[in-house]
Amino acid sequence: MNFASDNSYAAHPAVLTAVADANSGAVMGYGADPVTARAEAAIRDLLEAPEAVVRFVATGTAANALVCAQLSPSFGRIYCHDDAHIETSECAAPEFFSHGAKLVTLTGEGGRIDAATLAQTLQVGAGVGLNGGRSALVSITNATEWGTVYDPDQVAALASVAHAAGLPLHMDGARFANAVATLGCSPADLTWRAGVDALCLGGTKNGAMGAEAMVFFDPARAEGFDYRRKQSGHVMSKNRYLAAQMLALATDGLWLDLAHRANTKAQVLGQAVVDVGGRLLQPVQSNGVFAAIPKAAHDRAQAAGVLYHLWPDKTVQGADPVPLRLVTAWDTPDADVAAMAAILRG
Amino acid sequence: MNFASDNSYAAHPAVLTAVADANSGAVMGYGADPVTARAEAAIRDLLEAPEAVVRFVATGTAANALVCAQLSPSFGRIYCHDDAHIETSECAAPEFFSHGAKLVTLTGEGGRIDAATLAQTLQVGAGVGLNGGRSALVSITNATEWGTVYDPDQVAALASVAHAAGLPLHMDGARFANAVATLGCSPADLTWRAGVDALCLGGTKNGAMGAEAMVFFDPARAEGFDYRRKQSGHVMSKNRYLAAQMLALATDGLWLDLAHRANTKAQVLGQAVVDVGGRLLQPVQSNGVFAAIPKAAHDRAQAAGVLYHLWPDKTVQGADPVPLRLVTAWDTPDADVAAMAAILRG
Amino acid sequence: MNFASDNSYAAHPAVLTAVADANSGAVMGYGADPVTARAEAAIRDLLEAPEAVVRFVATGTAANALVCAQLSPSFGRIYCHDDAHIETSECAAPEFFSHGAKLVTLTGEGGRIDAATLAQTLQVGAGVGLNGGRSALVSITNATEWGTVYDPDQVAALASVAHAAGLPLHMDGARFANAVATLGCSPADLTWRAGVDALCLGGTKNGAMGAEAMVFFDPARAEGFDYRRKQSGHVMSKNRYLAAQMLALATDGLWLDLAHRANTKAQVLGQAVVDVGGRLLQPVQSNGVFAAIPKAAHDRAQAAGVLYHLWPDKTVQGADPVPLRLVTAWDTPDADVAAMAAILRG
Amino acid sequence: MNFASDNSYAAHPAVLTAVADANSGAVMGYGADPVTARAEAAIRDLLEAPEAVVRFVATGTAANALVCAQLSPSFGRIYCHDDAHIETSECAAPEFFSHGAKLVTLTGEGGRIDAATLAQTLQVGAGVGLNGGRSALVSITNATEWGTVYDPDQVAALASVAHAAGLPLHMDGARFANAVATLGCSPADLTWRAGVDALCLGGTKNGAMGAEAMVFFDPARAEGFDYRRKQSGHVMSKNRYLAAQMLALATDGLWLDLAHRANTKAQVLGQAVVDVGGRLLQPVQSNGVFAAIPKAAHDRAQAAGVLYHLWPDKTVQGADPVPLRLVTAWDTPDADVAAMAAILRG
Repeated sequence: MNFASDNSYAAHPAVLTAVADANSGAVMGYGADPVTARAEAAIRDLLEAPEAVVRFVATGTAANALVCAQLSPSFGRIYCHDDAHIETSECAAPEFFSHGAKLVTLTGEGGRIDAATLAQTLQVGAGVGLNGGRSALVSITNATEWGTVYDPDQVAALASVAHAAGLPLHMDGARFANAVATLGCSPADLTWRAGVDALCLGGTKNGAMGAEAMVFFDPARAEGFDYRRKQSGHVMSKNRYLAAQMLALATDGLWLDLAHRANTKAQVLGQAVVDVGGRLLQPVQSNGVFAAIPKAAHDRAQAAGVLYHLWPDKTVQGADPVPLRLVTAWDTPDADVAAMAAILRG
Repeated sequence: MNFASDNSYAAHPAVLTAVADANSGAVMGYGADPVTARAEAAIRDLLEAPEAVVRFVATGTAANALVCAQLSPSFGRIYCHDDAHIETSECAAPEFFSHGAKLVTLTGEGGRIDAATLAQTLQVGAGVGLNGGRSALVSITNATEWGTVYDPDQVAALASVAHAAGLPLHMDGARFANAVATLGCSPADLTWRAGVDALCLGGTKNGAMGAEAMVFFDPARAEGFDYRRKQSGHVMSKNRYLAAQMLALATDGLWLDLAHRANTKAQVLGQAVVDVGGRLLQPVQSNGVFAAIPKAAHDRAQAAGVLYHLWPDKTVQGADPVPLRLVTAWDTPDADVAAMAAILRG
Repeated sequence: MNFASDNSYAAHPAVLTAVADANSGAVMGYGADPVTARAEAAIRDLLEAPEAVVRFVATGTAANALVCAQLSPSFGRIYCHDDAHIETSECAAPEFFSHGAKLVTLTGEGGRIDAATLAQTLQVGAGVGLNGGRSALVSITNATEWGTVYDPDQVAALASVAHAAGLPLHMDGARFANAVATLGCSPADLTWRAGVDALCLGGTKNGAMGAEAMVFFDPARAEGFDYRRKQSGHVMSKNRYLAAQMLALATDGLWLDLAHRANTKAQVLGQAVVDVGGRLLQPVQSNGVFAAIPKAAHDRAQAAGVLYHLWPDKTVQGADPVPLRLVTAWDTPDADVAAMAAILRG
Repeated sequence: MNFASDNSYAAHPAVLTAVADANSGAVMGYGADPVTARAEAAIRDLLEAPEAVVRFVATGTAANALVCAQLSPSFGRIYCHDDAHIETSECAAPEFFSHGAKLVTLTGEGGRIDAATLAQTLQVGAGVGLNGGRSALVSITNATEWGTVYDPDQVAALASVAHAAGLPLHMDGARFANAVATLGCSPADLTWRAGVDALCLGGTKNGAMGAEAMVFFDPARAEGFDYRRKQSGHVMSKNRYLAAQMLALATDGLWLDLAHRANTKAQVLGQAVVDVGGRLLQPVQSNGVFAAIPKAAHDRAQAAGVLYHLWPDKTVQGADPVPLRLVTAWDTPDADVAAMAAILRG
């Protein structure tokens, strides 16, 4: 049983079928092929953003770091949550790609930044002068690293503050599908209509093998971006195989269907946590359960060989209750979910 | 008809089958899965290098740039041929990854550096002091960007010069399979036994969707390399799909079989060039034909809509004969090869 | 009246005399001159470190960033205090020079990290794996950004924790002279004998025009450092003028004498703060007074045109008491100090 | 006797006097002082460029690299001469500061690029696409690394080609004073009136201790530049000492007077080379003599302990005639010049 991460799980068969369908004949390389054109169009359609520039890469770290570097100079300050993936989990890729931009982190309940905190932080940032660097970008994650979501109003409030300070807003959407599935809003409402300037739309955790879309809603913000992507080794010569994955997810609402499945499984686990007397550290709003469970329940799970991470600090030893993270994917077996729920309940 | 590049062509069905086979169940991410372990072992076996560190990335540019950055400080001088892919075709990725290393280019017949030229250049390099930077790495491409090959003796001669100067030797093997297929030597003879310290073993042009292996024959040279790869966004969370591709190629000699097929098609085109009175700019030793053909033949091919690149300067207009490059892949249709040969012959 | 910064003040006449003395005849450039040799030797003597590698640069930001980049790879984690100059005041220079290293900040009373906090943080850092980067360096500032000092025992405790984790210890000594003047210990006791691996020994704030020494106590840690310095534009061709400044400060104890003078003036201001009912946020242990003073006193000082910074947040408006920083230099006029004391006291 | 470099020589007394004059009282740091304001204004006046943004740094490598990074993205191509200082003598600083920009070098007689060669090279550069990077900047050196000069018409021809391709033109003017002294034109005619967009105006080789001005004629091109300079450690806190040096040189035509003196000495040496049967590799148009002299003359000079560099390859051994470089400074003793002339003549 594996609840360690959604990237532990497989790709959806439709993704592999799309790849196989793309696998015939000669096409021009580096994205100048018809599958790529169709996939980019599909993402634009999905977002109701006909002017947007859409590009693909194979990893979420690349997607975020490339967009950060595109939108921040080396001397830029990038504002994000303390627990943002770009801060905690990308081995300083944003700093590397941008040549030194500083991630300035903000505290916020549930993995979310709130607009007032952002406003206050930007005010300080406006005063740091040469010493502190220049405010450049605000980045949020949706769904967050704590499994919660920003709704369109919350996004719009942040965008309003960012824009008032002259800064663009980036959304790390590694689990964007999970957020949309929960919120029931349109992707456009959650992004550009709310003021998002650049979106990383994750495919990998949603059921691709390894594919992410980067979307610049204003094409002017993508100036030179293809060179940047190439220079970092993230332009695939046989780009059709990357594009086909995103095309499959964007077709017939597969991406949302998969996200719904994953979210539902997380709900089951969340209920089991509550049943056993555990505490949900955050409400279950996507495909992750963040909870503190009785040590006895943790011990049972360990004894059964269940895989998951202690959270947020993997080095924790001996705590009771035990803080942990359980992540589900579209294809986490329902039997495993049920078994884990049973183990939790003892 | 497409002779523009081997990356215009498809992936071998066995590659897709291997990917599909890997697509079940949950595994740990970031390379801690059994397919990755098997693929790394397969590459070590193929190279008779049981101690080597093997890692995978999705693009050749990433592979070369990561290895260059691993083996050169920011103030390093990396010696390569004038026409080396790392110099001409990677958008300064080695400079970006290494934070500024300078590519010092050497002239050499047939895309090859010769040992005497290297020795002389390194002597100059040893004298440039702080102003010029510190000699750090020698990089060669095999098969070369001109379709020729270095044989093991030639590699050994270069390695000897490089090592005498304290520098490691890197081989860009984007078309390593094509070189081995031509030479009939063992991969080990062409690499570590000849003194190669790091190899980029290409899968993409050989029949993968997008997969390359990076091999450090001395594990000490790979110190910290996984962090470097992660920081550049080149660690795939679902690494099994990348690894499965290399595993398929390494299984039952598929990689060499595919290279043989591509090479054979190039021989057919090369003969047609000669037949029409064209001049082979280099002998056909891998899967590329570099030739100057009568303008009339070029005009016929253009009229027929055949795709290929003028070479080495894509901006050439009106020359007669016309310098060009024709590249074949394992799956370039034999009918297309025959048709192109017929067009050339008029 | 200027209490904004010690770098608002002038250079000591002996520094200019030394520069003038160096200004004759032809010498070899880039540090291969006799003044540089003497100045490097003088710093080694001052530190009782005959094997140390000593180099000079013109700014403290360059000194710190170069040393950080020398001791941390791009994927390194550099541990420092929340208020460390390298974190707050160098425009992300350490990140730029290192190509992306992440500064991981620690809370600590009085601008000091304590050993237990460091140990705990390093334990977490050891567990972050590829995602979080690799622990690389611990950096402390002495005297701190809050005007306090680490004594040799405190340094040794931190060094012990750092070394146990395999990390070197860097000391930003922009105001090292002020710390030594307060502590009365030997420079060696406060650095290498306590486990410091690299020291940035500041001259600029101590009475130079613009000169800082970087010291690597183990020459092996300086491998390639001259290239790094050159590549960042920090090797002066006429290095004698830089070296002469440090030589002057190191001669006949001038550096300590100047630091004593500055420290003494800060004591006077600190007493005035107390007298007016203000609160010292930290004890006055070097040449800075960090205090919260009644708004009325602040208003009097503003009305008199006294220059100083609100602290730690320059954007604070309307607070009472008013948090601020007063900095003295060797040549802050005693009359100004007295006048400011009088203003404070009303 | 030292003819190794103009940076082997001293600073003019007026420079030290200006520094001493600046050395009193408290001023705000980081360039917000009156001396800096006056020095920036003096440079603007000298160039008849009232709108220009002028900033100072302490080294020529920093000046060039900062301007290159300001005007080129990481994926940019910077066009310069094969022997450009930025290519041969700055330890890849432009690549480091820009995060990877590629220097594309052009051959040209006398260290000069000619407009036709540039036009042809840019045409190729326009065709390299993602693989080759994007053309970003043209950089020339005046006086050149071969002691020759571009006159205003030659600069204008290059600027015209660069601008037609949408690229700005940078002039490395480490020896700009020497060029102006030879040409007798106005600094404005040789720069912005001829189309130069950014100038590095050297003070160090002209008689400063270590000071260079960077000038952006269009302020829009300097957007964010102060942050860039700060992040690289090149903002001096006590900037007045840097600015005072440039102010001294710009006052009463001192800079041109010093350049005339140096140029005149080079003429004497050049004549001696001709007299002894040596060959001037280039006409003597500034303060350097590039010549091939009979080995016997070289042996005499070596026996007399005269310092100079073999050129362009410092590793040359045993050639006859011996290619070398002799550089003069404003304060190279006339007696040494006469003595060297005598040695050459045997």
